[in-house]
Amino acid sequence: MSVRLATSSQETAAAPATLTFTDAVLALRALVANDLTAVNEQILERMDSSVALIPDLAGHLVNAGGKRIRPMLTLAAARLFGYDGDHHVKLAAAVELIHGATLLHDDVVDGSALRRGAQTANIIWGNKESVLVGDFIFSRAFELMVAAGDLRVLQVLSRASGVIAEGEVLQLTTQNNLDTDFETYISVIEAKTAALFAGASHAGAIIAGADEDQVAALRDYGRFFGVAYQLIDDALDYAGFEDSLGKAVGDDFREGKMTLPVVYAVARAKPDEKSFWRRVIAENRRDDGDLEQALTYMERDDAIADTIACGRRYAERALNALGKAPQNAFSAALADLVATSLARAS
Amino acid sequence: MSVRLATSSQETAAAPATLTFTDAVLALRALVANDLTAVNEQILERMDSSVALIPDLAGHLVNAGGKRIRPMLTLAAARLFGYDGDHHVKLAAAVELIHGATLLHDDVVDGSALRRGAQTANIIWGNKESVLVGDFIFSRAFELMVAAGDLRVLQVLSRASGVIAEGEVLQLTTQNNLDTDFETYISVIEAKTAALFAGASHAGAIIAGADEDQVAALRDYGRFFGVAYQLIDDALDYAGFEDSLGKAVGDDFREGKMTLPVVYAVARAKPDEKSFWRRVIAENRRDDGDLEQALTYMERDDAIADTIACGRRYAERALNALGKAPQNAFSAALADLVATSLARAS
Repeated sequence: MSVRLATSSQETAAAPATLTFTDAVLALRALVANDLTAVNEQILERMDSSVALIPDLAGHLVNAGGKRIRPMLTLAAARLFGYDGDHHVKLAAAVELIHGATLLHDDVVDGSALRRGAQTANIIWGNKESVLVGDFIFSRAFELMVAAGDLRVLQVLSRASGVIAEGEVLQLTTQNNLDTDFETYISVIEAKTAALFAGASHAGAIIAGADEDQVAALRDYGRFFGVAYQLIDDALDYAGFEDSLGKAVGDDFREGKMTLPVVYAVARAKPDEKSFWRRVIAENRRDDGDLEQALTYMERDDAIADTIACGRRYAERALNALGKAPQNAFSAALADLVATSLARAS
Repeated sequence: MSVRLATSSQETAAAPATLTFTDAVLALRALVANDLTAVNEQILERMDSSVALIPDLAGHLVNAGGKRIRPMLTLAAARLFGYDGDHHVKLAAAVELIHGATLLHDDVVDGSALRRGAQTANIIWGNKESVLVGDFIFSRAFELMVAAGDLRVLQVLSRASGVIAEGEVLQLTTQNNLDTDFETYISVIEAKTAALFAGASHAGAIIAGADEDQVAALRDYGRFFGVAYQLIDDALDYAGFEDSLGKAVGDDFREGKMTLPVVYAVARAKPDEKSFWRRVIAENRRDDGDLEQALTYMERDDAIADTIACGRRYAERALNALGKAPQNAFSAALADLVATSLARAS
């Protein structure tokens, strides 16, 4: 089940036509390869515990094949300004651990059974274990940040984790709520996704000692990229191919999530179609064929195409912000990441 | 249902015979009254959010009538050394928020319906909400610590929160596990309770600029007091009166928790009594009358009395550590708190 992504009519931002998102991730990974190895070592070291369940569960999470985008933002943002210390490694590891703790708690809250194609920790070890190991990972993330010894970075990243949790709570109130509008949806993804992208690149620029304008530029880059990234993720959940995300198409639909494709589809539904959306989202009653029906409405009303168009606008803002930073291999790789993210399912 | 506490044969440590634990809490509260008001203001301020569920749920937790022992440890530990700044207020608020976040997650993990006589947040708002608001509160605690601006304190308190989570995970592995021995039990309570007591008093001494010996003394005071406090709590769960704790006698029994009274009772059970413990703890099958039977065995085998005796030894170590600190009204109040804690149910 997939719908063609309606991005073909104009070229996406600055991306070379042949470069895919995976190419851009791999290129960035090659550029920060040594740093990323050090990040992985830091993570494994910090997950050590005499309580065997902790490294077992944390190892499952860490090895689950994440793309490591967030820690790479920190590493590249620091290197971009010529940083040659090692605190950026600790901060990048901390950022990935905050992300990991959030995933553990998310999967408990959503009752998810699969992530990136593998069973989730809450299914293998249980909800209680996932909640508590999430807390442990979160604490270790803070210890790592403290070890980096920069109070301003600590302020940025502790604020970001509060905002993430706030966004998750806000998202709970939108679930199965047909009244969720564009502004509320954007607030949710600004908080639950963009805050950590922003914190990641912001922290890298701060630790590198970049000047205030450039620190702000890297923060904005991460923030706008984060919004764009989540918009595309939410479009892919309806339009994507199963194996490109490791999650099944229609997961959000089956959970009654009010992501932007649904927000648009509901707003554009004809009067006699409102009851369909009320039943499948608000009343949480879905039958075979409902996902296909939803996709038909979405295609007719450009709900997915307009979600991607919205993502494109945020991607352009991210690229504009990045334009204020020094132009070198690191900023070029960060730019490619954003530009190609718009065509992830193609 | 209660069993007489077998503490009457010797006077508890240094406590005046007439002083109760409640008296000691109130005396300490009077001594740090202005600081504690400022702590409560900080907490309310940090729980503010445009997502209404957050201040609602956090307010329920904050107003649930906790004794505020942990923040008072921070406040008194700082004042003890003549500190006259205001960072100790932020740290005390952070300590109470870490405690609050832990309680929210604990109640989800244990499926608890009551705390201090009131419905728990997971019952009123739901498990998902409690997990996510717990994460929010935890993040805000870190923001507060960062605002206090002392990297060493940040190191101590971020380490403490990791240890707490580790202790909670370890405790999960002991639940319904008849093989849990004294050492494992002590490891659990050192981590899940004593680490934050220690962090609280330790942080106060550090922020006050006390010298190294005295900083270590305050850390040890908190740690040993924390162990003693949890030992008495665990004894009270079998021996206490319902309204002195706001939790029902036998809660731990009904959850199959391997607290020290059970560890002792199992170790001392006659061969034909082992099957009773196997059924009620390991197999989690309990009938009417089983709690009474357990209490009868515990009384016969001094399981509760010896738990209290163990608490007394830790209390004495706490008082010894405190003896290295300046002797003034604050240290006297901290000493009374420990000494009277042994007789909480009397």
